[in-house]
Amino acid sequence: MKIVIAPDSFKGSISSMDAALSIERGILHAYPQAETVLVPVADGGEGTMENLVAATGGHKTKVHVIDPLKKPFEAEFGVLGDQQTCIIEIAAASGLNLVSIGERNPLKATTYGTGQLIKAALDEGYRNFILALGGSATNDGGAGMLQALGVELKNSAGKELDVGGGELGQLQQLSTENFDPRIEESQFTIASDVENPFVGPTGATYVFGPQKGATEAMVKVLDANLLHFANKIEEKMGVRLHDSPGAGAAGGIGGAFQAFFPSTLRRGVDVVVEYARLEEQLENADLVITGEGQVDFQTAYGKTPMGVAQSAKAKNIPTIILAGSYEGKIDSLYQYGVIGVYSVMNKPMTLDQAMKDASLLLEKTAEQVCRTYFFNRAGDSL
Amino acid sequence: MKIVIAPDSFKGSISSMDAALSIERGILHAYPQAETVLVPVADGGEGTMENLVAATGGHKTKVHVIDPLKKPFEAEFGVLGDQQTCIIEIAAASGLNLVSIGERNPLKATTYGTGQLIKAALDEGYRNFILALGGSATNDGGAGMLQALGVELKNSAGKELDVGGGELGQLQQLSTENFDPRIEESQFTIASDVENPFVGPTGATYVFGPQKGATEAMVKVLDANLLHFANKIEEKMGVRLHDSPGAGAAGGIGGAFQAFFPSTLRRGVDVVVEYARLEEQLENADLVITGEGQVDFQTAYGKTPMGVAQSAKAKNIPTIILAGSYEGKIDSLYQYGVIGVYSVMNKPMTLDQAMKDASLLLEKTAEQVCRTYFFNRAGDSL
Repeated sequence: MKIVIAPDSFKGSISSMDAALSIERGILHAYPQAETVLVPVADGGEGTMENLVAATGGHKTKVHVIDPLKKPFEAEFGVLGDQQTCIIEIAAASGLNLVSIGERNPLKATTYGTGQLIKAALDEGYRNFILALGGSATNDGGAGMLQALGVELKNSAGKELDVGGGELGQLQQLSTENFDPRIEESQFTIASDVENPFVGPTGATYVFGPQKGATEAMVKVLDANLLHFANKIEEKMGVRLHDSPGAGAAGGIGGAFQAFFPSTLRRGVDVVVEYARLEEQLENADLVITGEGQVDFQTAYGKTPMGVAQSAKAKNIPTIILAGSYEGKIDSLYQYGVIGVYSVMNKPMTLDQAMKDASLLLEKTAEQVCRTYFFNRAGDSL
Repeated sequence: MKIVIAPDSFKGSISSMDAALSIERGILHAYPQAETVLVPVADGGEGTMENLVAATGGHKTKVHVIDPLKKPFEAEFGVLGDQQTCIIEIAAASGLNLVSIGERNPLKATTYGTGQLIKAALDEGYRNFILALGGSATNDGGAGMLQALGVELKNSAGKELDVGGGELGQLQQLSTENFDPRIEESQFTIASDVENPFVGPTGATYVFGPQKGATEAMVKVLDANLLHFANKIEEKMGVRLHDSPGAGAAGGIGGAFQAFFPSTLRRGVDVVVEYARLEEQLENADLVITGEGQVDFQTAYGKTPMGVAQSAKAKNIPTIILAGSYEGKIDSLYQYGVIGVYSVMNKPMTLDQAMKDASLLLEKTAEQVCRTYFFNRAGDSL
């Protein structure tokens, strides 16, 4: 009796590792003889680096960089257990969580620190990268990152642009002459679920700008600036980002990867599932338990539980989803081998209470679903 | 694939029949080919008569009686599908729900109407009775019921006592000379989970009086009056109710049955399970789904889900419990063949919301537990 435990984090409550440990306690309470395998996963967002490093037995390296508002600090990149793959979260050096709410300003915020992290990893010899987009404070089209790696962005006076999406309107000359040559020797896997284009009403700025602090006026300026940047990139690199799906991820940094980096765009969960070696762990498993804070119609489109369920289904293993809450037509999940969706609530309660008690609630619910599923299959009887 | 659906009511929310129908919808959504058998059950409390009449295909009869405060109205007794067994709820003619909160007064409230119901049923020829105690407004030791059936309770002036527990202190002479002789020819099954004695600190008055509107002063008077009544009964009938377990049920009416009626005291759920013919329905079932509003440590002691689970376990059939809420050490339920306890909540919510949405929540949860339990057992695959 082997059970693979592969939850996402429960956002605002517990990490995916803590969720996995809670579920494991419940399983072992029901069936002490069960073999459990913990594969905490994430969808490429917050916590992805920590999880993959932990899941693969890798390590982390601290680097002196600047934050989105140019304040020096230390950020980390991760190295997976293979000692070859470097994982960098955009949020590590360029994240919204690094800027207090009052200071949020996408006109100024820069991805420069992310470029510094990449440079440091290149210095250490790494050439295989996973970039987890998501949670960025920036709207600079990746300009800061490019500058940190040697791309020159000059105004009409021949002067290098200051950082931030607000400056890009002044870009006259884009030069890759001093662009770090090690980028060409590398491979970048871009983990992102965002399919928005670089510019326009469904682009980076209009869709994601406001949550980063952009006012209506800022949105207009920033989108116009990204359009100008896209035009310059098309002129110089021959790559048209304007309507390119995914180019609008993380304030347009998705586009910078598309135009300047040897890169592949993949769903976050697929990247995580591959590097956490979920498929290997699934061998001979009888059941998979996954979960996340909120299961809804989006869950069928790329969120962690679906990625996990799809991998399990390919091996004919059923999946049960434990959620903080579930709503709507969860029937759409069944085709992916999901044989049960449960909320972990044990009674009417507030969201605060649920978040506070998440670990115990997960444990109790995992115990019950195991008892129900394995009864008699495990050779037990009443 | 046969599933027996045997929930209690979800108090304050939906009846046991509506709960059973909701659960059935969920099951049939998961497995349209499933054979479902609905056996709504109750623990002998509110709704027991309605449920058993519905479950057995019986009928109801209206009778002109007086309510606890002597107002004339129509109450009902039920006749089960066997056309022989008459079921009477104490609450039907002597219930707390018949008295507005401002009018509640156990000094005055009488069980006379319950005696009238029994008399009417005797008149129609019935000799087999189920009396469901619970929900009474009274604290008269069943004196009113006895008077309605011909027992004489006189004061020192030889005058018949007025009704209500407050009058019993004046009882001088108790005569059964005119007690309805048909009672002796009958059999009474008393469905009650109350094990309290007639009098004293754990007796009818001290434990249940306050919830019927008794003030501290009233409690003293009423308990002293019941003690006086018990002394007279012991003197006359040779039956000592004082410490008798169950004599304190329904304001002491339990004691009246013990002293004056050919009666057997049984757990409510056992009576319901027997008369709803649950055991027959369980033949060849694969799973039982039961449920109630609140599952807690008390559930292991005589509440509906346990009675159902015990019956199922005797036939080697596992039981799943769906609850509004569950708390505490539900492990104690496992020994009774319970292979899953689930709250029907699908997210953090208020009790009001949960009660309002109970039907849909039950349906959705039943669907999930069936999917989890029957996967592959039903011959299906991913």
